[in-house]
Amino acid sequence: MTTRPDPVAAADADARALALSLMATGHAALAWTDPETSTPGISRIAFAHDPQVGPLTLISALAPHFRALRETPDCAVMLGEVGPKGDPMTHPRLMIRARAVFIAASATERSALRDRWLARNPKATIYIDLPDFAFVCLAPQSALLNAGFARAFRLTAGDLQP
Amino acid sequence: MTTRPDPVAAADADARALALSLMATGHAALAWTDPETSTPGISRIAFAHDPQVGPLTLISALAPHFRALRETPDCAVMLGEVGPKGDPMTHPRLMIRARAVFIAASATERSALRDRWLARNPKATIYIDLPDFAFVCLAPQSALLNAGFARAFRLTAGDLQP
Repeated sequence: MTTRPDPVAAADADARALALSLMATGHAALAWTDPETSTPGISRIAFAHDPQVGPLTLISALAPHFRALRETPDCAVMLGEVGPKGDPMTHPRLMIRARAVFIAASATERSALRDRWLARNPKATIYIDLPDFAFVCLAPQSALLNAGFARAFRLTAGDLQP
Repeated sequence: MTTRPDPVAAADADARALALSLMATGHAALAWTDPETSTPGISRIAFAHDPQVGPLTLISALAPHFRALRETPDCAVMLGEVGPKGDPMTHPRLMIRARAVFIAASATERSALRDRWLARNPKATIYIDLPDFAFVCLAPQSALLNAGFARAFRLTAGDLQP
Protein backbone atom coordinates (compact mmCIF):
# COMPACT_ATOMS: atom_id res chain seq x y z
CA MET A 1 0.00 0.00 0.00
CA THR A 2 1.14 3.55 -0.66
CA THR A 3 1.22 6.22 2.03
CA ARG A 4 -2.05 8.11 2.22
CA PRO A 5 -3.59 10.88 4.34
CA ASP A 6 -4.89 9.94 7.79
CA PRO A 7 -8.56 9.04 7.19
CA VAL A 8 -9.50 10.03 10.75
CA ALA A 9 -10.16 13.70 11.59
CA ALA A 10 -10.00 15.45 14.97
CA ALA A 11 -13.45 15.75 16.54
CA ASP A 12 -15.42 18.95 16.01
CA ALA A 13 -18.53 20.13 17.91
CA ASP A 14 -20.87 18.11 15.67
CA ALA A 15 -18.82 14.94 16.19
CA ARG A 16 -18.80 15.45 19.97
CA ALA A 17 -22.59 15.99 20.00
CA LEU A 18 -23.15 12.84 17.92
CA ALA A 19 -20.86 10.83 20.22
CA LEU A 20 -22.76 11.99 23.31
CA SER A 21 -26.09 11.14 21.69
CA LEU A 22 -24.84 7.59 20.92
CA MET A 23 -23.81 7.26 24.58
CA ALA A 24 -27.49 7.63 25.56
CA THR A 25 -28.07 4.10 24.17
CA GLY A 26 -29.07 1.64 26.92
CA HIS A 27 -26.95 -1.25 25.65
CA ALA A 28 -23.61 -1.77 23.97
CA ALA A 29 -21.22 -4.37 22.60
CA LEU A 30 -18.18 -5.04 24.79
CA ALA A 31 -14.87 -6.51 23.57
CA TRP A 32 -12.64 -8.12 26.19
CA THR A 33 -9.72 -10.51 26.45
CA ASP A 34 -10.36 -14.12 27.51
CA PRO A 35 -8.16 -14.80 30.56
CA GLU A 36 -7.66 -18.45 29.58
CA THR A 37 -6.78 -18.11 25.91
CA SER A 38 -5.75 -14.42 25.60
CA THR A 39 -8.05 -14.25 22.56
CA PRO A 40 -10.89 -11.74 22.06
CA GLY A 41 -14.36 -12.25 23.50
CA ILE A 42 -17.50 -10.19 22.90
CA SER A 43 -20.72 -9.63 24.87
CA ARG A 44 -23.79 -7.46 24.94
CA ILE A 45 -23.94 -5.27 28.02
CA ALA A 46 -26.48 -2.97 29.63
CA PHE A 47 -25.04 0.55 29.40
CA ALA A 48 -25.54 3.97 30.90
CA HIS A 49 -23.66 7.24 30.63
CA ASP A 50 -23.85 8.10 34.29
CA PRO A 51 -23.54 11.83 35.08
CA GLN A 52 -21.17 11.11 37.98
CA VAL A 53 -18.88 8.27 36.84
CA GLY A 54 -19.36 8.23 33.06
CA PRO A 55 -19.77 4.97 31.07
CA LEU A 56 -21.22 2.34 33.35
CA THR A 57 -22.49 -1.22 33.19
CA LEU A 58 -23.95 -3.78 35.62
CA ILE A 59 -22.53 -7.31 35.26
CA SER A 60 -23.42 -10.73 36.64
CA ALA A 61 -20.59 -12.98 37.79
CA LEU A 62 -22.15 -15.63 35.50
CA ALA A 63 -21.22 -13.56 32.42
CA PRO A 64 -17.90 -14.53 30.83
CA HIS A 65 -16.75 -10.91 30.70
CA PHE A 66 -17.04 -10.54 34.49
CA ARG A 67 -13.97 -12.65 35.19
CA ALA A 68 -12.24 -11.37 32.03
CA LEU A 69 -12.50 -7.73 33.14
CA ARG A 70 -11.37 -8.66 36.66
CA GLU A 71 -8.16 -10.06 35.21
CA THR A 72 -7.65 -7.70 32.26
CA PRO A 73 -9.46 -4.36 32.64
CA ASP A 74 -8.63 -3.17 29.11
CA CYS A 75 -11.73 -3.39 26.95
CA ALA A 76 -13.60 -1.68 24.12
CA VAL A 77 -17.25 -0.58 23.90
CA MET A 78 -19.31 -0.02 20.74
CA LEU A 79 -22.50 2.05 20.85
CA GLY A 80 -25.02 2.80 18.10
CA GLU A 81 -28.04 1.07 16.63
CA VAL A 82 -28.40 0.01 13.03
CA GLY A 83 -31.66 1.45 11.77
CA PRO A 84 -34.10 -0.50 9.60
CA LYS A 85 -33.14 1.22 6.34
CA GLY A 86 -30.05 1.61 4.19
CA ASP A 87 -26.53 0.17 4.35
CA PRO A 88 -25.74 -0.85 7.96
CA MET A 89 -22.21 0.51 7.50
CA THR A 90 -23.52 4.06 7.04
CA HIS A 91 -25.22 4.16 10.47
CA PRO A 92 -23.15 6.01 13.09
CA ARG A 93 -21.33 4.14 15.84
CA LEU A 94 -18.92 5.08 18.60
CA MET A 95 -16.03 2.83 19.62
CA ILE A 96 -14.51 3.60 23.04
CA ARG A 97 -11.24 2.16 24.33
CA ALA A 98 -11.84 1.80 28.06
CA ARG A 99 -10.53 0.41 31.32
CA ALA A 100 -12.93 -1.41 33.63
CA VAL A 101 -13.09 -0.33 37.27
CA PHE A 102 -15.27 -2.49 39.52
CA ILE A 103 -17.31 -0.52 42.05
CA ALA A 104 -17.33 -2.18 45.47
CA ALA A 105 -20.71 -2.89 47.07
CA SER A 106 -19.53 -0.74 49.98
CA ALA A 107 -18.42 2.22 47.85
CA THR A 108 -19.95 5.51 48.94
CA GLU A 109 -21.00 6.42 45.39
CA ARG A 110 -22.89 3.15 44.82
CA SER A 111 -26.16 4.29 46.36
CA ALA A 112 -26.57 7.23 43.96
CA LEU A 113 -25.44 5.13 40.97
CA ARG A 114 -27.93 2.46 41.93
CA ASP A 115 -30.81 4.96 42.18
CA ARG A 116 -30.03 6.42 38.76
CA TRP A 117 -29.67 2.93 37.22
CA LEU A 118 -33.07 1.89 38.59
CA ALA A 119 -34.67 5.10 37.34
CA ARG A 120 -33.57 4.09 33.83
CA ASN A 121 -34.09 0.31 34.25
CA PRO A 122 -36.92 -0.34 36.74
CA LYS A 123 -36.89 -4.08 35.99
CA ALA A 124 -33.32 -4.32 37.34
CA THR A 125 -34.84 -4.23 40.85
CA ILE A 126 -35.04 -8.02 40.85
CA TYR A 127 -31.25 -8.55 40.50
CA ILE A 128 -29.43 -5.27 41.17
CA ASP A 129 -28.68 -6.14 44.81
CA LEU A 130 -27.72 -9.80 44.33
CA PRO A 131 -24.23 -10.39 45.72
CA ASP A 132 -22.78 -11.55 42.39
CA PHE A 133 -23.81 -8.46 40.43
CA ALA A 134 -21.38 -5.55 40.25
CA PHE A 135 -21.38 -2.07 38.77
CA VAL A 136 -18.38 -1.58 36.53
CA CYS A 137 -17.23 1.81 35.35
CA LEU A 138 -15.78 1.73 31.80
CA ALA A 139 -13.36 4.64 31.98
CA PRO A 140 -12.69 5.99 28.47
CA GLN A 141 -9.10 6.19 27.27
CA SER A 142 -9.87 7.34 23.71
CA ALA A 143 -12.60 6.91 21.12
CA LEU A 144 -13.31 6.68 17.43
CA LEU A 145 -16.58 7.91 15.95
CA ASN A 146 -17.63 6.49 12.63
CA ALA A 147 -20.38 8.73 11.32
CA GLY A 148 -20.78 6.89 8.00
CA PHE A 149 -18.61 6.03 5.03
CA ALA A 150 -15.32 7.96 5.11
CA ARG A 151 -16.48 10.12 8.05
CA ALA A 152 -14.33 9.11 11.02
CA PHE A 153 -13.33 11.23 14.01
CA ARG A 154 -10.88 10.75 16.87
CA LEU A 155 -12.12 11.73 20.35
CA THR A 156 -10.41 12.14 23.70
CA ALA A 157 -11.76 11.02 27.07
CA GLY A 158 -12.54 14.70 27.72
CA ASP A 159 -14.77 14.86 24.64
CA LEU A 160 -16.98 12.15 26.18
CA GLN A 161 -17.64 13.77 29.53
CA PRO A 162 -21.33 13.76 30.52
CA MET B 1 -18.34 -17.35 45.25
CA THR B 2 -19.68 -20.85 45.89
CA THR B 3 -19.63 -23.58 43.26
CA ARG B 4 -22.79 -23.59 41.19
CA PRO B 5 -24.17 -25.53 38.21
CA ASP B 6 -22.87 -24.61 34.75
CA PRO B 7 -25.32 -21.93 33.53
CA VAL B 8 -24.67 -22.84 29.86
CA ALA B 9 -26.53 -25.79 28.29
CA ALA B 10 -25.58 -27.87 25.24
CA ALA B 11 -27.37 -26.66 22.11
CA ASP B 12 -30.63 -28.33 21.11
CA ALA B 13 -32.47 -28.07 17.76
CA ASP B 14 -34.24 -24.85 18.77
CA ALA B 15 -30.96 -23.24 19.83
CA ARG B 16 -29.30 -24.23 16.53
CA ALA B 17 -32.23 -22.83 14.53
CA LEU B 18 -32.11 -19.55 16.47
CA ALA B 19 -28.33 -19.30 15.98
CA LEU B 20 -28.69 -19.79 12.21
CA SER B 21 -31.46 -17.18 12.04
CA LEU B 22 -29.20 -14.66 13.84
CA MET B 23 -26.47 -15.41 11.28
CA ALA B 24 -28.76 -14.05 8.56
CA THR B 25 -28.12 -10.54 9.95
CA GLY B 26 -26.23 -8.34 7.48
CA HIS B 27 -23.93 -6.72 10.04
CA ALA B 28 -22.15 -7.70 13.24
CA ALA B 29 -19.86 -6.44 15.97
CA LEU B 30 -16.28 -7.69 15.75
CA ALA B 31 -13.83 -7.89 18.67
CA TRP B 32 -10.13 -7.99 17.79
CA THR B 33 -6.73 -7.44 19.40
CA ASP B 34 -4.88 -4.18 18.71
CA PRO B 35 -1.45 -5.13 17.32
CA GLU B 36 0.23 -2.11 18.93
CA THR B 37 -1.17 -2.30 22.46
CA SER B 38 -2.43 -5.93 22.69
CA THR B 39 -5.69 -4.49 24.10
CA PRO B 40 -9.19 -5.16 22.72
CA GLY B 41 -10.66 -3.22 19.83
CA ILE B 42 -14.19 -3.34 18.45
CA SER B 43 -15.76 -2.52 15.07
CA ARG B 44 -18.99 -2.86 13.13
CA ILE B 45 -18.62 -5.12 10.12
CA ALA B 46 -20.74 -6.07 7.14
CA PHE B 47 -21.58 -9.75 7.55
CA ALA B 48 -22.88 -12.67 5.52
CA HIS B 49 -23.29 -16.35 6.22
CA ASP B 50 -22.01 -17.53 2.89
CA PRO B 51 -23.23 -20.99 1.83
CA GLN B 52 -19.74 -21.96 0.66
CA VAL B 53 -17.30 -20.49 3.19
CA GLY B 54 -19.52 -19.66 6.17
CA PRO B 55 -19.20 -16.40 8.15
CA LEU B 56 -17.77 -13.74 5.85
CA THR B 57 -16.99 -10.04 5.86
CA LEU B 58 -15.54 -7.50 3.44
CA ILE B 59 -12.97 -5.12 4.98
CA SER B 60 -11.20 -1.96 3.85
CA ALA B 61 -7.51 -1.59 4.63
CA LEU B 62 -8.45 1.78 6.18
CA ALA B 63 -10.38 0.01 8.96
CA PRO B 64 -8.34 -0.58 12.14
CA HIS B 65 -9.39 -4.23 12.29
CA PHE B 66 -7.86 -4.96 8.86
CA ARG B 67 -4.28 -4.77 10.14
CA ALA B 68 -5.28 -6.26 13.50
CA LEU B 69 -6.71 -9.41 11.90
CA ARG B 70 -3.68 -9.69 9.60
CA GLU B 71 -1.44 -9.86 12.68
CA THR B 72 -3.75 -11.71 15.10
CA PRO B 73 -6.48 -13.74 13.36
CA ASP B 74 -8.27 -14.65 16.61
CA CYS B 75 -11.45 -12.60 16.92
CA ALA B 76 -15.04 -12.74 18.14
CA VAL B 77 -18.27 -11.84 16.32
CA MET B 78 -21.60 -10.85 17.89
CA LEU B 79 -24.84 -11.05 15.89
CA GLY B 80 -28.37 -10.04 16.85
CA GLU B 81 -30.39 -6.87 16.84
CA VAL B 82 -31.94 -5.24 19.87
CA GLY B 83 -35.60 -4.68 19.10
CA PRO B 84 -37.46 -1.50 19.99
CA LYS B 85 -39.27 -2.98 23.01
CA GLY B 86 -38.35 -4.51 26.33
CA ASP B 87 -35.07 -5.04 28.18
CA PRO B 88 -32.18 -5.08 25.65
CA MET B 89 -30.59 -7.93 27.63
CA THR B 90 -33.51 -10.25 26.84
CA HIS B 91 -33.04 -9.99 23.04
CA PRO B 92 -31.16 -13.00 21.59
CA ARG B 93 -27.57 -12.70 20.44
CA LEU B 94 -24.93 -15.09 19.17
CA MET B 95 -21.25 -14.75 20.08
CA ILE B 96 -18.83 -16.65 17.82
CA ARG B 97 -15.15 -17.23 18.58
CA ALA B 98 -13.53 -17.16 15.16
CA ARG B 99 -10.27 -17.09 13.24
CA ALA B 100 -9.90 -14.68 10.33
CA VAL B 101 -8.73 -16.05 7.00
CA PHE B 102 -8.06 -13.44 4.30
CA ILE B 103 -9.21 -14.49 0.83
CA ALA B 104 -6.68 -13.57 -1.84
CA ALA B 105 -7.92 -11.51 -4.79
CA SER B 106 -6.67 -14.37 -7.00
CA ALA B 107 -8.43 -17.14 -5.04
CA THR B 108 -10.60 -19.36 -7.23
CA GLU B 109 -13.59 -19.11 -4.87
CA ARG B 110 -13.58 -15.28 -4.86
CA SER B 111 -15.69 -14.86 -8.00
CA ALA B 112 -18.63 -16.83 -6.59
CA LEU B 113 -18.31 -15.15 -3.16
CA ARG B 114 -18.27 -11.77 -4.85
CA ASP B 115 -21.40 -12.53 -6.88
CA ARG B 116 -23.31 -13.67 -3.79
CA TRP B 117 -22.10 -10.64 -1.79
CA LEU B 118 -23.31 -8.26 -4.52
CA ALA B 119 -26.65 -10.02 -4.74
CA ARG B 120 -27.16 -9.19 -1.04
CA ASN B 121 -25.44 -5.77 -1.11
CA PRO B 122 -25.87 -4.18 -4.55
CA LYS B 123 -24.36 -0.87 -3.36
CA ALA B 124 -21.05 -2.63 -2.68
CA THR B 125 -20.40 -2.46 -6.45
CA ILE B 126 -18.65 0.88 -5.97
CA TYR B 127 -15.90 -0.51 -3.70
CA ILE B 128 -15.89 -4.31 -3.84
CA ASP B 129 -13.08 -4.46 -6.43
CA LEU B 130 -10.86 -1.74 -4.99
CA PRO B 131 -7.39 -3.15 -4.34
CA ASP B 132 -7.45 -2.41 -0.60
CA PHE B 133 -10.70 -4.27 0.10
CA ALA B 134 -10.51 -7.92 1.06
CA PHE B 135 -12.98 -10.68 1.80
CA VAL B 136 -12.22 -12.25 5.16
CA CYS B 137 -13.69 -15.56 6.25
CA LEU B 138 -14.40 -15.70 10.00
CA ALA B 139 -14.03 -19.42 10.63
CA PRO B 140 -16.00 -20.39 13.77
CA GLN B 141 -14.16 -22.17 16.57
CA SER B 142 -17.07 -22.26 19.04
CA ALA B 143 -20.09 -20.16 19.93
CA LEU B 144 -22.34 -19.07 22.75
CA LEU B 145 -26.01 -18.29 22.17
CA ASN B 146 -27.73 -16.07 24.68
CA ALA B 147 -31.44 -16.43 24.08
CA GLY B 148 -32.51 -14.19 26.95
CA PHE B 149 -32.05 -14.05 30.71
CA ALA B 150 -30.62 -17.34 32.02
CA ARG B 151 -31.01 -19.08 28.63
CA ALA B 152 -27.50 -19.71 27.33
CA PHE B 153 -26.32 -22.45 24.98
CA ARG B 154 -22.93 -23.67 23.85
CA LEU B 155 -22.52 -24.40 20.12
CA THR B 156 -19.83 -26.09 18.08
CA ALA B 157 -18.53 -24.96 14.69
CA GLY B 158 -20.58 -27.82 13.22
CA ASP B 159 -23.79 -26.41 14.68
CA LEU B 160 -23.23 -23.22 12.65
CA GLN B 161 -22.84 -24.77 9.22
CA PRO B 162 -24.96 -23.08 6.54
